Amino acid sequence: MKRFSTILALAVSVILLTACGRLNSSGVGTTSSTKTKSSIQTTGQTSDNEYQGVIQNGKYKTSKARGLTQDQNTNGYNLKSFENGLQSISQKQFATDDYIFQEGQYLKKATAQKWLARKSKSNTSGLNPVDNGQTDATKRNPDYLQAIEEQDYMTQSGSNLKLGGMTIGLAMNQIDYYQKEEYGATYETSISEAKMTSEGKSMANKVVARMRKTEGVGNVPIVIALYKQATNDSLVGGTFFAYGISRAGSKTISEWHNVNEANYTLPVVGSAKSGNSSDAEAFSTFKSQVESFFPNLSGVTAQTHYKDGNLAGMNITINTQFYSETEIKSFTQYLVTAANKYLPSEAAIEITVKSTNDTQAFIAREAGSKSFYSHVFGSY
Amino acid sequence: MKRFSTILALAVSVILLTACGRLNSSGVGTTSSTKTKSSIQTTGQTSDNEYQGVIQNGKYKTSKARGLTQDQNTNGYNLKSFENGLQSISQKQFATDDYIFQEGQYLKKATAQKWLARKSKSNTSGLNPVDNGQTDATKRNPDYLQAIEEQDYMTQSGSNLKLGGMTIGLAMNQIDYYQKEEYGATYETSISEAKMTSEGKSMANKVVARMRKTEGVGNVPIVIALYKQATNDSLVGGTFFAYGISRAGSKTISEWHNVNEANYTLPVVGSAKSGNSSDAEAFSTFKSQVESFFPNLSGVTAQTHYKDGNLAGMNITINTQFYSETEIKSFTQYLVTAANKYLPSEAAIEITVKSTNDTQAFIAREAGSKSFYSHVFGSY
Repeated sequence: MKRFSTILALAVSVILLTACGRLNSSGVGTTSSTKTKSSIQTTGQTSDNEYQGVIQNGKYKTSKARGLTQDQNTNGYNLKSFENGLQSISQKQFATDDYIFQEGQYLKKATAQKWLARKSKSNTSGLNPVDNGQTDATKRNPDYLQAIEEQDYMTQSGSNLKLGGMTIGLAMNQIDYYQKEEYGATYETSISEAKMTSEGKSMANKVVARMRKTEGVGNVPIVIALYKQATNDSLVGGTFFAYGISRAGSKTISEWHNVNEANYTLPVVGSAKSGNSSDAEAFSTFKSQVESFFPNLSGVTAQTHYKDGNLAGMNITINTQFYSETEIKSFTQYLVTAANKYLPSEAAIEITVKSTNDTQAFIAREAGSKSFYSHVFGSY
Repeated sequence: MKRFSTILALAVSVILLTACGRLNSSGVGTTSSTKTKSSIQTTGQTSDNEYQGVIQNGKYKTSKARGLTQDQNTNGYNLKSFENGLQSISQKQFATDDYIFQEGQYLKKATAQKWLARKSKSNTSGLNPVDNGQTDATKRNPDYLQAIEEQDYMTQSGSNLKLGGMTIGLAMNQIDYYQKEEYGATYETSISEAKMTSEGKSMANKVVARMRKTEGVGNVPIVIALYKQATNDSLVGGTFFAYGISRAGSKTISEWHNVNEANYTLPVVGSAKSGNSSDAEAFSTFKSQVESFFPNLSGVTAQTHYKDGNLAGMNITINTQFYSETEIKSFTQYLVTAANKYLPSEAAIEITVKSTNDTQAFIAREAGSKSFYSHVFGSY
């Protein structure tokens, strides 16, 4: 999900010389003004855990439904975790060494907007239920589906890329926010875990059947990943809870897999859940050490991410005011020492140091690595 | 000047075990509530090219004149380059392996403010010339000195730290900005290179003589570094142009050294200077490739830093709007490929990718290194 990698300058040329086992990094075809056929390149890969992206005629190939997911998400944390998580789920089916990532090209923006809307006489393809006329939170039909995103996974065949697989994320509401009148107060309809899951799985089958009819999709495997949106007041995004696979050519999901992920924020406020208590304590010790070390700290908070009950990552944000560059440098050095000493040793760690205007410094450690990278943002 | 390093978690314990050649990383004395004497620790070192900082009783020891340099600088770029550069100059005299950095403790804020003010009957210690009553740009006495900053370099002796050296930076104006009446229009008095230099060197001797009389400074070597402030409209900070050394106990500067540094911004606007033209061309190619690759780029600019005529570093800022996390990831991958291909190969490179709200990603390569580090800022 996160990028954390050192790339040898050599890698570019090495990959070009590689005959098998890895994808050709750049120049699947070359950019030439005399060719009429569009030429394809890839972005280059910065880590084994990341997909390369598709460049067409020297330009990044953006999504056909570009911006739609952004529009659908009031909470920016959902946007980030939904899109990052979708690539992580995809990796279970489409290996980063064998597939190239392409922003979704088959689900058009207008189509996706219809699918996201309620079903009605004028919109028979709506995946959300018909409006039953009720405005009471428990009597109305809530919107179950909040956002949809397609990702394409391409395979290389000679000098061409062709669609090798597809992942579609369905972001499901645990709370549907609604107004009784335009610009009116916001009300909430809660949706049970069971209902969210059954609706998601039902929609997944409809989406697969529709995508099979979409020109160009053909018989490639389609993965549908179900995401539970975080609530609007959450300071961390939601999580994926299941994914289903439609094998080559099948019009339904043939197998479902559960995904056991959870996100929390630290420090724990009130009776909120914190994930593993020893991780929360480690953060708490780190926080108090750092706060006593440096004046002017106005906040030390963290997002934590768990997979199968184990801490997979911790993103810490420190807000502070600095009076000099030397203070930023010394503070960053101290953070590395304190992070090594107090924070959980296995998980990926990212610490960002911000002042009023800007990001001043950050330190990061990849999952399973023992080394921290630190950087103070410079200026000449 | 910039921080760019990978730190082994092991380093902390290794340094603790080292008997000689390196400083004891943490625990020069230990923090204990039963001790009456203040206890000293250090921040830890993240790179051989960086000083460790001083922690006293678990707190970072801030400067006695904290915030003064910030107040004196209208242009934030000057603040950063003055303070970073001062540590670089210090390294010529005080090796990072032998000395620990301490924020200035001997020049009090009130004293520094008097030195920075004009000389007058009520302020006989003012280093700037008396007000001759003129308001005409060429007839008035300009303020030559804009900012002053002290840095202390400590040596370890048993379980104590003692002052081993001191560096004082004098930030000199090439243009003195002034008002003829309070809140009035801003006028400018230009100061020649020769005058700026002679005034700076003269002040340096006064500062040395005064510091020798300051309690606690004693006979340690004192370095005075002269900095030329960038103009207020500059998009890059100023540079150091000379430094002088006052050997142990001497009340004057015994030797002066020239510093040949220059900063520029790219792309070149109008008839502005650009440093080395091949570096400017390399940036220009990079910029046009990146701009054609990705939609919504609203700016690709760079600061360049030259030492003795050679490119020492390039900081590139890319402003853009993203519609998804996958776009940020692919863009960052492409940047690594493009940076390897088009940017100068020897200099330190830092590329920051920003959107409206925040820093989204960055890639960096240390001077002389072949590897780029890339990071996309994550969120769960």
